[in-house]
Amino acid sequence: MPAHTPASDPSPASATRALRVALLGCGVVGTQVARALLEHADDLAARAGAPLELVGVAVRDVTKPRDGVGTVIPADLLTEDAEVLVDEADLVVEVMGGIEPARTLIRRAIDGGASVVTANKALLAEQGPSLFEAADAAGVDLSFEAAVAGAIPIVRPVRESLAGDHVRRVLGIVNGTTNYVLDQMATHGLELAQAVKEAQELGYAEADPTADVEGLDAAAKAAILASLAFHTRVSIGQVAREGITSVTADDVAWAARTGHVVKLLAIAEQTDEGVSVRVHPALVPLDHPLAAVRGAFNAVFVEADGAGSLMFYGQGAGGRPTASAVLGDLVSAARDKLVGGKGPHESAYASLPVLPADAAVTRYQVRMVVADRPGVLAQVAGVLADHGVSIDTVRQTAGEPPADATGTGTASLLLTTHAAREASLAATVAALDGLEPVREITSVLRVEGV
Amino acid sequence: MPAHTPASDPSPASATRALRVALLGCGVVGTQVARALLEHADDLAARAGAPLELVGVAVRDVTKPRDGVGTVIPADLLTEDAEVLVDEADLVVEVMGGIEPARTLIRRAIDGGASVVTANKALLAEQGPSLFEAADAAGVDLSFEAAVAGAIPIVRPVRESLAGDHVRRVLGIVNGTTNYVLDQMATHGLELAQAVKEAQELGYAEADPTADVEGLDAAAKAAILASLAFHTRVSIGQVAREGITSVTADDVAWAARTGHVVKLLAIAEQTDEGVSVRVHPALVPLDHPLAAVRGAFNAVFVEADGAGSLMFYGQGAGGRPTASAVLGDLVSAARDKLVGGKGPHESAYASLPVLPADAAVTRYQVRMVVADRPGVLAQVAGVLADHGVSIDTVRQTAGEPPADATGTGTASLLLTTHAAREASLAATVAALDGLEPVREITSVLRVEGV
Repeated sequence: MPAHTPASDPSPASATRALRVALLGCGVVGTQVARALLEHADDLAARAGAPLELVGVAVRDVTKPRDGVGTVIPADLLTEDAEVLVDEADLVVEVMGGIEPARTLIRRAIDGGASVVTANKALLAEQGPSLFEAADAAGVDLSFEAAVAGAIPIVRPVRESLAGDHVRRVLGIVNGTTNYVLDQMATHGLELAQAVKEAQELGYAEADPTADVEGLDAAAKAAILASLAFHTRVSIGQVAREGITSVTADDVAWAARTGHVVKLLAIAEQTDEGVSVRVHPALVPLDHPLAAVRGAFNAVFVEADGAGSLMFYGQGAGGRPTASAVLGDLVSAARDKLVGGKGPHESAYASLPVLPADAAVTRYQVRMVVADRPGVLAQVAGVLADHGVSIDTVRQTAGEPPADATGTGTASLLLTTHAAREASLAATVAALDGLEPVREITSVLRVEGV
Repeated sequence: MPAHTPASDPSPASATRALRVALLGCGVVGTQVARALLEHADDLAARAGAPLELVGVAVRDVTKPRDGVGTVIPADLLTEDAEVLVDEADLVVEVMGGIEPARTLIRRAIDGGASVVTANKALLAEQGPSLFEAADAAGVDLSFEAAVAGAIPIVRPVRESLAGDHVRRVLGIVNGTTNYVLDQMATHGLELAQAVKEAQELGYAEADPTADVEGLDAAAKAAILASLAFHTRVSIGQVAREGITSVTADDVAWAARTGHVVKLLAIAEQTDEGVSVRVHPALVPLDHPLAAVRGAFNAVFVEADGAGSLMFYGQGAGGRPTASAVLGDLVSAARDKLVGGKGPHESAYASLPVLPADAAVTRYQVRMVVADRPGVLAQVAGVLADHGVSIDTVRQTAGEPPADATGTGTASLLLTTHAAREASLAATVAALDGLEPVREITSVLRVEGV
């Protein structure tokens, strides 16, 4: 396989042996990584300390036509034999996605002494611990900045910049598709289905939007962020998850009326009992920095004892942004390789308990339709008190008038609670639902970022 | 000098030799660094890979009463002999500030083989190159995350996360005092002097606010950011600088009327000709993420070819936030020390020309009072055309009526230009000022972030 080295003469001082880079996958991200390695070879060599030589691109089918192949990427770099490619590489970039064969190839690379850069959040959220152990044992880097929030540097800041601090909470808008959908609902009053359809037409959502709207993508990222922030291994199975499928135009409109915006948040927080990791739609106050994150942008808000509030904002997806994160990791892995070292080990020393979903503590906004007659609010308040949930604010608005002179009309009741346990709130809602004057529990939304 | 090692038993696996940490300076930042080293020794040891042992704190006068000394920090850790302290350290934290003796002590530490963490922006912006060369020669780290934007991780993201990308522009709100002052002017309609006085009373501004309001502090940070972003050495003397002292309540009110907010920006951008680095007040459109940065918060907005737009937001000053950044660097330097390596070298390989102030290219908003009679706008527009400056928008509003029946009244004219060279704009403004119907050039403000 011919090597495509940088065009310019390396100066004598920098005439280090080139590092051999294998690329696994040639989709939108892989193509941009290959393009940068070929077109910006001189800059990358100067920054890494040695030329980064793209020795091959593994694909499933070399005959499939691909944008950029034959023009930007020489066709003879493509190969179907990923194993041979991995075996001859110093650095392996995995951007094929999915669990297999990605896992086996990454493991092969690590065991063979290559450092690995991956954008594969699903794999890390499922198989991270065994891969990190293998990387530590082999003394190689396993880097994954691109797996969380695309181009936004968040893995490195949390792992390195905050290494001397104590992170309390991470709140992230880490899925651009759902943020775009919720933003369109807020801006144009659309129902969810319409907004998803529009996002699909614009390429912001996939034909099957399940992984996004059900919060699976965000849950994988939440697991990774929680692991980093709390030095504790968290797998995707431990993340409490609720997608945006039950969010209505009415919820979004009510959010605005009460000074909030609905966002799908990935939340990781440390309490006295352990670590709570969850993904769900939440009401975010309009004056919180996350409320201003519009369209398909991502942002991660971090609260730490020393640093206070930090926010990292940028593009969470797309070929070029994701490739930027991959290349940053690749340059770091190359530097480490050249000095024979490796970057920070995966740190799971704290091993905090990961709490079950119903142990999460947050505030809630409950909307319901009740019979419009005296004493109903007292009954409702009594149910909350019985469950140890205290009320912050109550807002009652007129609903439907009585159907006839002897009947009872309805009113809308909007309750905001103080922080309460998920379990207590669930029991409260069940009890309210069984209360005679309660006609309907219209919505229950968590309030975060306060 | 007694050593204060972590209280708990290190497990056999982590029974690495402790790294000896010398702290130079015991002000608000130094006290917080010492506190963390003493109170969170176990966490820091787990993250660094070895205990970090605070072996001493150098101060000018050990007899001076200090908060925390004698309680949090054992008094016997204090010493006036900084040189002896430096000589016995593996890691030196410099938080004393100022050029000397900080420079000599840092140099002594480096030459003796210690890695150095500093928060000293003034020193780096002036003496950075010689110190980085010395650190590279000695194979030690010289880290400075705390020198720019306090707790916000920005040095590491720009240097490492974006190492595979091409940064085009950096726009930073990097001085909390001036941001607080401008925010108060915008929110409460205050004049600058009132807002500064209030900031002083609240501790956001120093008794002598010169370094802040004249943009000196921001200029040092601009030089550091430009050096990192463009792999080019930029010193503070090369930064074009204008403070906020000429910004009036009227400017701020007009900004709001035209959909902008006035911010003091540190700007570093690459053009075809080189690198432009400058600090000046600027009109930022309200829908730009930097416009929402309120109070004393800092934020750095980065535009890169691959990553697109990124923003990093947080607290830019204060003892605990700055200490958080110092400790992050300290843990990284310790990890590097343990493997006998060092982090990324200072990278100045690109060595781009740093452009003079008048080569900057930006948009302008010019407000002026003109005679209210036909033909004036044509004359004004003619002056701009003669200087090759093209007009984007014009807004004319009624001014004073004529003083008597034979006189001419005045009107206010607000021009927004397309991007133009600073030199062309300066010549244009001079020519306008000499134009008969122009009574006054009320203000000239640059427009950034579009």
